[in-house]
Amino acid sequence: MDKPYVIGIDIGGTNSVFGVVDTRGNVLYNGSIKTGKYEDVNDYVRALGEGLQAVIRSAGGRDKIKGIGVGAPNGNYFNGCIEFAANLPWKGKVPLAQLISDRTGGIPVTLTNDANAAAIGEMTYGAARGLKDFIVITLGTGVGSGIVCGGNLVYGHDGFAGELGHTTVRRENGRLCGCGRHGCLETYASATGVARTARELLTMRTDASLLRALEPDKITSKDVFDAAVQGDKLSIEIFDITGEILGEAFANFVAFSSPEAIILFGGLSKAGDLIMEPVKRSMEAHMLKVFQGKTRLLFSQLKESDAAVLGASALGWEAKDEPMDALV
Amino acid sequence: MDKPYVIGIDIGGTNSVFGVVDTRGNVLYNGSIKTGKYEDVNDYVRALGEGLQAVIRSAGGRDKIKGIGVGAPNGNYFNGCIEFAANLPWKGKVPLAQLISDRTGGIPVTLTNDANAAAIGEMTYGAARGLKDFIVITLGTGVGSGIVCGGNLVYGHDGFAGELGHTTVRRENGRLCGCGRHGCLETYASATGVARTARELLTMRTDASLLRALEPDKITSKDVFDAAVQGDKLSIEIFDITGEILGEAFANFVAFSSPEAIILFGGLSKAGDLIMEPVKRSMEAHMLKVFQGKTRLLFSQLKESDAAVLGASALGWEAKDEPMDALV
Repeated sequence: MDKPYVIGIDIGGTNSVFGVVDTRGNVLYNGSIKTGKYEDVNDYVRALGEGLQAVIRSAGGRDKIKGIGVGAPNGNYFNGCIEFAANLPWKGKVPLAQLISDRTGGIPVTLTNDANAAAIGEMTYGAARGLKDFIVITLGTGVGSGIVCGGNLVYGHDGFAGELGHTTVRRENGRLCGCGRHGCLETYASATGVARTARELLTMRTDASLLRALEPDKITSKDVFDAAVQGDKLSIEIFDITGEILGEAFANFVAFSSPEAIILFGGLSKAGDLIMEPVKRSMEAHMLKVFQGKTRLLFSQLKESDAAVLGASALGWEAKDEPMDALV
Repeated sequence: MDKPYVIGIDIGGTNSVFGVVDTRGNVLYNGSIKTGKYEDVNDYVRALGEGLQAVIRSAGGRDKIKGIGVGAPNGNYFNGCIEFAANLPWKGKVPLAQLISDRTGGIPVTLTNDANAAAIGEMTYGAARGLKDFIVITLGTGVGSGIVCGGNLVYGHDGFAGELGHTTVRRENGRLCGCGRHGCLETYASATGVARTARELLTMRTDASLLRALEPDKITSKDVFDAAVQGDKLSIEIFDITGEILGEAFANFVAFSSPEAIILFGGLSKAGDLIMEPVKRSMEAHMLKVFQGKTRLLFSQLKESDAAVLGASALGWEAKDEPMDALV
């Protein structure tokens, strides 16, 4: 009998969550550990291994698991390493796929970054089922992306393709980005970008806004969303500005890979039509004629609480039984 | 015995050139007809068919030909049609692959646009041999591109991917493009873009230049090149400006697909280091840290006079013997 389950592990700076998933995207058994608690990656893998053993037992044992997929910041698909991830406690290059495989008695482990995992998740269980050309844009603290062309994830020659959050969208007076450059999409279209736009507008202008009741430095994208829902004009305008810039960027992405759909995933996408409508308008307005009206904008269809684990787990179905070394 | 040859056909607005090519990229027999002479596509295909019969006979007959590849403006790989090509005499959608196959007694015909053909040509016979992730940028009257990810050409869901000449590189006061939009890469980094930069600089400034001896409206990129080679400062600066913008754009492309190489092809690439050096400098300066120093910039290695035919011919090796209808 074919192995009926996979395991997804999503490694974030705070928590690592994992779960056993079936072919239809149901998370059957799950658990989590605190990533930040383990300065030494071996301690981390030991704790993770115990958590995994528990869910594997619940699922009926190791023979039921086809593979393990891991989504992690700076995860490199080609060598199974996490490489220089700023938000994780471990420095340098960590061969995590190998460590997890060893710890689980040789279950094949595939690793990639979180946005790529999201893309494979949408293709396997979500909004991209049946699509061969699409882009997933993750709108969280930063902006990430997973790109699929002709049914294959675009990894690039080094495994680091799909850094669309760091394409430059403003050449003149562009905002300073965490990467050290100026004008990156991420500085405008992330949750932090929205808060930044709010602070800028509140300083530059004098019109009334519900946001003026808040301490400027503490304004979050959630505050802007709540105010916009209550009809606050300035807050609605903030989403319009964000959507305008995102739509301009999308028009360029379409000129690159002509995707059938662009899928919005993560925090900011919860703003729904407040963000989707201006993005759509702007993308169509800036698009080369041959592409107009052909690329759909969709929201992620992965159930929110499980999305990260589902995305990672989808990689598990790709697992091959060859030894990891053959992949390096 | 395997069929030892393919045929490449490059369809331009003025001429259509074709040739029989072997596995090593030698053009053995060739010919051409005037594209512009045939208002009716059936007359065109009849004349082309006669030319093809002649080279096929020279090659030892139809059984020696594995397939025919066609590079044409607005050529759509998926349906074998030329669709609404502004520079060709035929209007609307022309099923050219089918017409050519019928006319040559059923040799399988594959068609794509000229920049995609160039990319497949580089991969088969040129600078991209052995590469799985690269981008070919054609710098001619316009700017075209062929993108290869993981060994596969990126066609997009509709066959029109790879319009990198129409990504927006200047949001504010961007130049008007032939496509009706503003700030496209093509308006700066094409041969016509270089001439435009020359006219702008000559108007804005007063410093001496060899270009001032020419009638501004008639200045070509070749004139700018000739002057730069003679040490003309303004002309060298024009290439620096062009390279700067091209390098900025390349840094964004790298964030998308992380190619191992970007290959410059066509007219403007003949400027050699005059264009390559500023592009390199600018690309590295604008690149996200994780990509720095990893993407090579190369010149096309297809012999100039044969490049277009070779590019198109490379598609012929992909030909399958299934009927065209199966591909639509």
